[in-house]
Amino acid sequence: MSDTSPADLLAEARAGSRAALARLITYVEHGGDRHRTTVALAYASPVPYVVGITGPPGAGKSTLTNALVTRALEAGTFEGAHPFSKVAVLAIDPTSPFTGGAVLGDRVRMQSHSLDERVYIRSMATRGQLGGLSQAVPDAIRVLGAAGFELVCVETVGVGQMEVEIASAADTTLVVSIPGAGDAMQASKAGLLEIADVFVINKADRPDAHHVRRDLEAMLDFVETSGWRPPIIETVALEARGVAELWTSIALHRRYLEESGQLTTQRELRAQVELERVMTSLLLERLRGRATGDDFAAAVTRIVAGDIDPYRAAESLLP
Amino acid sequence: MSDTSPADLLAEARAGSRAALARLITYVEHGGDRHRTTVALAYASPVPYVVGITGPPGAGKSTLTNALVTRALEAGTFEGAHPFSKVAVLAIDPTSPFTGGAVLGDRVRMQSHSLDERVYIRSMATRGQLGGLSQAVPDAIRVLGAAGFELVCVETVGVGQMEVEIASAADTTLVVSIPGAGDAMQASKAGLLEIADVFVINKADRPDAHHVRRDLEAMLDFVETSGWRPPIIETVALEARGVAELWTSIALHRRYLEESGQLTTQRELRAQVELERVMTSLLLERLRGRATGDDFAAAVTRIVAGDIDPYRAAESLLP
Repeated sequence: MSDTSPADLLAEARAGSRAALARLITYVEHGGDRHRTTVALAYASPVPYVVGITGPPGAGKSTLTNALVTRALEAGTFEGAHPFSKVAVLAIDPTSPFTGGAVLGDRVRMQSHSLDERVYIRSMATRGQLGGLSQAVPDAIRVLGAAGFELVCVETVGVGQMEVEIASAADTTLVVSIPGAGDAMQASKAGLLEIADVFVINKADRPDAHHVRRDLEAMLDFVETSGWRPPIIETVALEARGVAELWTSIALHRRYLEESGQLTTQRELRAQVELERVMTSLLLERLRGRATGDDFAAAVTRIVAGDIDPYRAAESLLP
Repeated sequence: MSDTSPADLLAEARAGSRAALARLITYVEHGGDRHRTTVALAYASPVPYVVGITGPPGAGKSTLTNALVTRALEAGTFEGAHPFSKVAVLAIDPTSPFTGGAVLGDRVRMQSHSLDERVYIRSMATRGQLGGLSQAVPDAIRVLGAAGFELVCVETVGVGQMEVEIASAADTTLVVSIPGAGDAMQASKAGLLEIADVFVINKADRPDAHHVRRDLEAMLDFVETSGWRPPIIETVALEARGVAELWTSIALHRRYLEESGQLTTQRELRAQVELERVMTSLLLERLRGRATGDDFAAAVTRIVAGDIDPYRAAESLLP
């Protein structure tokens, strides 16, 4: 398969080849010519619906995603829309900012779906290409769309800036909380609130689930929510409890986005963000070519010596 | 004071005016002409020694920083180096990625030093200038250096990419753990390991402190540490226990950096990172000017329509 073109691989992926699909997503992760060809094909294909699942480690996101995928395939349709014959999961794993690398591999994830032909699961952690993981995720989503996946679940951990950027690739974002999580979660709520379309209280059979609900309700009362107030759904993902209700909430949010025109607006905004991100990366790439030159090294020496500050140095170096 | 120039403000700050110093750091946060003038002055002044303190929320970082500042002023000298007559603390508060804004104000922090003329404490959260908070922090450090502060403690929460960038402004980085923190901390250790010069186990009077030590030792055995193996110091910051030992570790690390030549190497690398960051920001600023044009809007429309992918669009837009 080593000399198969992205176009041929995409045809194979559409026909059901997981190996071909895996290869295409690897191109997206690694950058280069094959990435460009793959992306050109992918962006000419329909956009899948993207559900983001985020929250702190230990909230049971993988189990919840698992249950959601089962529900999506059972439901077959999405509030009257086309049936989901294939569902993909992108698991964005926590990575070291320096070394990269997935902590959890695909193999340990979602074993109940591992033999199901309709489900494709992939971990992503590489940041080798233009725009980094922030851009690799939307590109991979488009590749999945081109391969015939109409629903893609993107699972991220935490609420760093990168996770928020990745969440912005989702049409509907689920923010998963659990009862009994401490200060760490509280501190991150401000960021989570702004990306949440649906709040999920997982492990809701724990005694203090009502505290989490009360806190979330209070927070929602405090901020202005116009048009769509994120519902709070209690689940016990391990037993699939609450998952049908969660699925209905996602469908309602999708309908809200469509009827309000926001689905279109969001997709335009996303294209704008992606274009700006890629332009910045291209500029940075050119800059790095320039940055190896003597002028750059001389400027660094002058900054260290206290002769010039980085702003004046930058202006003197740019054309 | 409203029409005082940065140069006059800096003279006042050197003479001990906190109001003048606060004004200069506000210039750094907000960007613009006064920022540029301030930075030009600041980069011509000596660099202070920077100790970074990072770790999860609830680890007692503020209390620990408080105790370290007390120790620094008591010790007076730093292993034979010049005395610290003034110590500054920059507290980088957790912010929402969208709204910004400090969660904790200066006033609630480190009240025991609030009347001490030798200590200056400042929260930073704004990201209004070129390069964002990642660049505002090194700029503020240089302003503090110009105002006569020879030691600056920079306190950050968490281990997102921004926190790691900010930690890279520190000469010696302390990574603070506490016994009994769960999965969330474990997940972030990979990133923390790479920035840690000294590990601190705070609240070490809790029963399972030895578990944290064992985990950290195992992790240090697993990775290669060449030249400097980060020591693990147990503290009870509230009672100032272990703080003298911690201070000694910082002094030893400083000596290691100086004797190995790494202090110089690090500062060159930092100047390089800052220059590249400012150049990228300047380019991005120019790009945003360009991005409001008709061509950009037309490209966005074409991406949404599936006519072109963001990479080809970016290449067509760039000169």
